[in-house]
Amino acid sequence: MASSVSKRPNRKQGAPALEPDSPSLDEEDSIIAALLATVGKGRPNAARAKVGPGDDAAVWDDRTVVTVDTLIEGVHFNDRLQPGDVGFKALAVSVSDVLAMGAVPTWAVLSLSLPRMMPAWLADFATGLSEALQQFGVELIGGDTTSSSGPVVVSMTVGGSLATAPWTRSAARIGDDIWVTGTLGLAGMGWAHPDPPEPALQALRRPSPPLAFVRALRSSDLTPAAMDLSDGLARDAQRMATASGVGMRLKTRHLPGHDCLGPRALIYQTRGGEDYQLLFCLSPKHRETLQTLARTTDTRLTRIGRVQEGGLAFLNDGPWPPPLFAHFPSKGGEDPKGGEDPR
Amino acid sequence: MASSVSKRPNRKQGAPALEPDSPSLDEEDSIIAALLATVGKGRPNAARAKVGPGDDAAVWDDRTVVTVDTLIEGVHFNDRLQPGDVGFKALAVSVSDVLAMGAVPTWAVLSLSLPRMMPAWLADFATGLSEALQQFGVELIGGDTTSSSGPVVVSMTVGGSLATAPWTRSAARIGDDIWVTGTLGLAGMGWAHPDPPEPALQALRRPSPPLAFVRALRSSDLTPAAMDLSDGLARDAQRMATASGVGMRLKTRHLPGHDCLGPRALIYQTRGGEDYQLLFCLSPKHRETLQTLARTTDTRLTRIGRVQEGGLAFLNDGPWPPPLFAHFPSKGGEDPKGGEDPR
Repeated sequence: MASSVSKRPNRKQGAPALEPDSPSLDEEDSIIAALLATVGKGRPNAARAKVGPGDDAAVWDDRTVVTVDTLIEGVHFNDRLQPGDVGFKALAVSVSDVLAMGAVPTWAVLSLSLPRMMPAWLADFATGLSEALQQFGVELIGGDTTSSSGPVVVSMTVGGSLATAPWTRSAARIGDDIWVTGTLGLAGMGWAHPDPPEPALQALRRPSPPLAFVRALRSSDLTPAAMDLSDGLARDAQRMATASGVGMRLKTRHLPGHDCLGPRALIYQTRGGEDYQLLFCLSPKHRETLQTLARTTDTRLTRIGRVQEGGLAFLNDGPWPPPLFAHFPSKGGEDPKGGEDPR
Repeated sequence: MASSVSKRPNRKQGAPALEPDSPSLDEEDSIIAALLATVGKGRPNAARAKVGPGDDAAVWDDRTVVTVDTLIEGVHFNDRLQPGDVGFKALAVSVSDVLAMGAVPTWAVLSLSLPRMMPAWLADFATGLSEALQQFGVELIGGDTTSSSGPVVVSMTVGGSLATAPWTRSAARIGDDIWVTGTLGLAGMGWAHPDPPEPALQALRRPSPPLAFVRALRSSDLTPAAMDLSDGLARDAQRMATASGVGMRLKTRHLPGHDCLGPRALIYQTRGGEDYQLLFCLSPKHRETLQTLARTTDTRLTRIGRVQEGGLAFLNDGPWPPPLFAHFPSKGGEDPKGGEDPR
């Protein structure tokens, strides 16, 4: 869910995914925030929603987590995704939001808007969605389909159940370690690279939010500050820092990467987006526990920095945020220095 | 929610709303049914969803009702609705589904796809949505906004809570009375008439699902067969009859109408759609209770027929389904005989 803001960038088909923050997205953020503020006035049940608009998902009645995410043809997917990938991904991106709250996904309802009869597309879509439902242990309990004059719109609402207090993005404390699950940058490369290698395409098509690790972590009784990475580490870490009123010192050389990311690895890892992995913060005293949980759930887990005072800082690769964009060959710059394996 | 099917007709902008059943809608129904069957295979939590795809809303864990409905610019709304009406209606149509399960709506999450920056539209939309949230006692707990190349798409997921067993559309028994709340046909007239009178426009813009009556009825411990009327009585009563394995004998002269419906009243009342009122069946022994509940909640309640064996029958106005369509002036027919006040 976009919380109070859209978490997926305003991607136009064919446009590069790694442009600087889009002013229209920021405008949209503020408009939606204003909308939610308007509708928040006189909320009859205001005391009942424990975490409302502004986190990865909403929490209702202490035990139910709800999130919605929408994928639009030409904006969030193009012909790099088969219909089956769209079906899989529609669920996976919302599962990622639910996990980021420390909840386990349980049910989903689907709204599908189609411009025409598309039986072959639908059959493939259903197959991919089925795979995701099975993989993440979710039941599709209902759906709505409408015809539209526009592009395919897939809107998936996912509910999850909490066992303990919800994890929020506002709970990071100075001195905490900053951790990330999985690999960063592959999906961003899959989206933006003119001829992406197979691992990058696979990451774009089939996100794998860390279900097993979150299950284990919530059973451990630890309550991290947490959010899911959907718009890229640079933007999402800033959101978490702002929500928590802290700064973050991130070591770019430590970001979990992949050989195939090539010389633009750092750009993909920080700006690529679509990672659908967990970014979380916990006191250093829990390092050993976390590493054990990662081993037992076969999860790649990387400590990438530390919570500090002040703003966001990326170290070891020069100042932040520029001059990353200068490194795009299309803009006449040189390759960035992030090519070495950050592990 | 469309349950396993889309409950709103495939309306094309500018096309008459009262055409015969659209083949494309029926095709779509079967495709979506196939989709849901595919994804239903190997459902991990199949035992936990008490009422899955196929009713007005899904029931999860015996106490939570969830439904989703989508409104698309040019399909479900046009310039007869102001943005505030769209905001109001987006919630009201899902509230109608929740009420039809015997549940009370509590939370909502919104997904909004916009083709461009539309601050004035959004401000008006938010105002109308706020009014609906207040009127129906619902809290908006989250939302997602995306940019799209297509029309405005508003997808609202609403959750509700059950106090007793859910009402279903499959529980009608032979001998039951058939009841309907509110007035039929006004919204259909508001959609289809070239110059609709104010009450018809108002009904189209601001649906008023029977919240107070449903609250009272669920407190009475009665468990009716129930569904909401969204596609018109003719189609929806057939769905209920089919789901219950019964027939229905409906008296067209008894349908609750309004003076302004004019000579085409019967067509609007049975084919117009968008009523968002409750259609329900209960044993005749509860007549007095129901009439008391209606009085105490200031609800118009009309007994319109009886559950019987066999198929759907409309009486007192000739055979069913034809020749209603012959009565459209545009098709050269005469006015139907349904012009008198059906009360």
